[in-house]
Amino acid sequence: MSSSIVVNEVRRGVYFDSVALMRMSRTIAGGDGVIECGMMMGTPANRRIMEDAGVLADGGRGAANGDLVIAVSAHTQAAADAALAAARALLDAPKAQKSGGAAYTPRTIRAAVAADPAANLALISVPGVFAAAEARKALNRGLNVMMFSDNVPIAEEVALKQFAREQGLLMMGPDCGTAIINGTALGFANVVPRGDIGIIGASGTGIQEVSCLIANNGGGISHAIGTGGRDLKAEVGGITTLMAIDLLDGDPGTRHIVIISKPPAPDVARAVLARVANSVKPYTICFIGGTDEPMPSNAKMVATLEAAAGHALKQTLEREAVTKTGGAAGKFMRGLFAGGTLCAEAQVVLASAGLACASNVPIPGSLPLSASLPGHTLIDLGDDEYTQGRPHPMIEPAVREAPLLAALAEPGVGVVLIDVVLGYGAHADPAGHIVSVLARAQQPHPLVITSVTGTAGDPQGLTQQQAKLRAAGVVVAPSNAAAVRLAIQHISP
Amino acid sequence: MSSSIVVNEVRRGVYFDSVALMRMSRTIAGGDGVIECGMMMGTPANRRIMEDAGVLADGGRGAANGDLVIAVSAHTQAAADAALAAARALLDAPKAQKSGGAAYTPRTIRAAVAADPAANLALISVPGVFAAAEARKALNRGLNVMMFSDNVPIAEEVALKQFAREQGLLMMGPDCGTAIINGTALGFANVVPRGDIGIIGASGTGIQEVSCLIANNGGGISHAIGTGGRDLKAEVGGITTLMAIDLLDGDPGTRHIVIISKPPAPDVARAVLARVANSVKPYTICFIGGTDEPMPSNAKMVATLEAAAGHALKQTLEREAVTKTGGAAGKFMRGLFAGGTLCAEAQVVLASAGLACASNVPIPGSLPLSASLPGHTLIDLGDDEYTQGRPHPMIEPAVREAPLLAALAEPGVGVVLIDVVLGYGAHADPAGHIVSVLARAQQPHPLVITSVTGTAGDPQGLTQQQAKLRAAGVVVAPSNAAAVRLAIQHISP
Repeated sequence: MSSSIVVNEVRRGVYFDSVALMRMSRTIAGGDGVIECGMMMGTPANRRIMEDAGVLADGGRGAANGDLVIAVSAHTQAAADAALAAARALLDAPKAQKSGGAAYTPRTIRAAVAADPAANLALISVPGVFAAAEARKALNRGLNVMMFSDNVPIAEEVALKQFAREQGLLMMGPDCGTAIINGTALGFANVVPRGDIGIIGASGTGIQEVSCLIANNGGGISHAIGTGGRDLKAEVGGITTLMAIDLLDGDPGTRHIVIISKPPAPDVARAVLARVANSVKPYTICFIGGTDEPMPSNAKMVATLEAAAGHALKQTLEREAVTKTGGAAGKFMRGLFAGGTLCAEAQVVLASAGLACASNVPIPGSLPLSASLPGHTLIDLGDDEYTQGRPHPMIEPAVREAPLLAALAEPGVGVVLIDVVLGYGAHADPAGHIVSVLARAQQPHPLVITSVTGTAGDPQGLTQQQAKLRAAGVVVAPSNAAAVRLAIQHISP
Repeated sequence: MSSSIVVNEVRRGVYFDSVALMRMSRTIAGGDGVIECGMMMGTPANRRIMEDAGVLADGGRGAANGDLVIAVSAHTQAAADAALAAARALLDAPKAQKSGGAAYTPRTIRAAVAADPAANLALISVPGVFAAAEARKALNRGLNVMMFSDNVPIAEEVALKQFAREQGLLMMGPDCGTAIINGTALGFANVVPRGDIGIIGASGTGIQEVSCLIANNGGGISHAIGTGGRDLKAEVGGITTLMAIDLLDGDPGTRHIVIISKPPAPDVARAVLARVANSVKPYTICFIGGTDEPMPSNAKMVATLEAAAGHALKQTLEREAVTKTGGAAGKFMRGLFAGGTLCAEAQVVLASAGLACASNVPIPGSLPLSASLPGHTLIDLGDDEYTQGRPHPMIEPAVREAPLLAALAEPGVGVVLIDVVLGYGAHADPAGHIVSVLARAQQPHPLVITSVTGTAGDPQGLTQQQAKLRAAGVVVAPSNAAAVRLAIQHISP
């Protein structure tokens, strides 16, 4: 084994972000003749890591918390010197070069507020030992705070949250990794569409997993408020969670609220659930690891993040159906399908719910169509009797126009169920056609429920067609079977 | 009510596509002073429709099946004349103007084969009365046939399919709306990724719904073979379905087969299921409306298209886990999480399966971590003990490198479970980092199962990150909870 040279350099009283430092140190470690490189703030834990890595010399051993240590081991003195020079160059490079940052970065909260007086939130990510003082400055200036920093003593957290509550300000964190406020992602957060599900989370990745599963299954997020991982501990008492419930409860854009946390202290769980019980909105409670507290009637306890997303999505779809019912009530379902097998699948779903129906293409157990029948009817408009000498309704939705207008005007009909099929061969804008028919229908008309058979790659675009239908008051389910289940719920509440 | 003028013009022995005609007729009907316009082939059914619409005069009444009728009603003679002139102009416009079509369109099968001798499939969509003759020409030239045309007598279908079978050619249809062969969409079909699920469908929209649900939930399609709606009737005997099973059974790119149909004739159902039982591949059978026949052990009967897609996806994921097990067998699970709540959720899923585990951040019921513990361990690498003075593993996946390599080399470990979190703040390519670590791991190593918390809108791209992991032999589940369930199945088969 060849000999090694260890050199250290210490910069007193400066602060660098640990991520930037780690990236720089990996660059230096990759240099010719360099064995290992550590660039870290001189905390006891970091000095121990560097000692274990064999890069610490006396210079670095004497560093303090606020000092930056540059520690290099190399095969030759020349390589060590070159590594130190390279590290200096990286550290002294203009900010933009290191981070690709903006032209002007305020260095104090005072300067940031002066630069943008309309700002109402400060994101604080300095090391834990400095974070509380910065948060207090922000709160004093009337700013809500998201504190990304961790390693803040719990007593400091309690004091900050109490002070924030007195000022009517939201204190997210410390150790708040994720928030999405008014569509703006803060910290670790994903690009999710806006919607009417609000999330309150003591956990960053909990918020991320739930918001992504909601987004990837057709839903959207109003706000996601992080509280920090200790908010539901007895010492903190859920201050931020309770304020977040107040905020989302009063937010007209939020119609369902998901709360995610590890199991709270029993007293805190009771306080949170009592506040939930006072809300008219429905809740999904995901205390990972469970709770023994009874749930209020407007809340459902789920065991996993996956189940939380599923419950919130299901409730959102059901609520959408209730909301979009324009006043036309009726107990019969009229299904008008372009897809014959979608019509058959709908009959299967009705039958499995114990409901009889009639169809021009009845499956075993369904009734044949009869003009005098007052029950549920599911019509396949693509069947030969409708398409002989005329185009198929998937190609030319105009052939569905007359039966659709008739169903929308028929007394006793509560739900009109239709399918929308995209892809090659299909009409260029089937959703647009349905929207144009609805605009000519009498008002109020029965609820219209649909699903869109298609993919993001289809020429018509799945999300674009879904959005067009939703904007016109149509409820869009994630599959044909889900659309039928929703229709059944709606006619037999 | 004002008087109306009705004028008809007939073009003998020409054929126009019904969709093109319907679009033209709607354009004409929108003209000044025009009441209604029908442009249709002169079949008895179409003449009845035009008679009912009040646009048929003696000229049109005398038209034959192969004649085109242009039928206009208008408020004035001038408007009627203008409408006829406009219809003539549309009909006589160059082909490209009507359909945006290609420069050269062969008008016969002989000419088409001459133009592209490598072609091995003919798509036939002429009217039913002409379709069988065209199909026979194609089969005689050694072409497989997809017949989009409907209204073909069942005796013709039987004769064509028997002839095709003798030639070893596939006869899809008549009334075959949808197929996807080698990634090429034919007829009504959606843009779906390629994958290892094959579909055989008597129904076009059935294939579309199942293939879209598979695509929208992370799966892909090898081929989708349409058979036509009557293939499983007693007269036809499932000729095309049985040949399609032979083809997909022998196709190395197909690992799971979904069969979709309305309830077959009992004899045909038995023949199809007997052929399924002779295959080593797993099947999902979706006879919409059910069957009383018993299922072979390699097939599962489902009631809906939605359930068919769900079953095929679940089986695909489970098979992927088996396939990607490289030879390292073990009964213990090692979870290495960047997301603390994902680690906690994993513990919940293990507990609900009755499995004990140890963690550095145990939920109630889990054990604390101990160096001597031989059971399942789930580690939160984002916990303070790992991140003090170092970046969080979501920002800098390098901190997961050493524990990941250790777990991959640990005797007795059967599954390594990891999370991948995308979004703002996260590493630019966490999947790439995992792939680079796996390339340096000892071979064979335990199965690696993951899920990617992210969306299509995230800077890293959800599908790109998933694809990178899959290509490196990692099994990618659709959620963290699903990943844990799969890991449990894998260690306790």
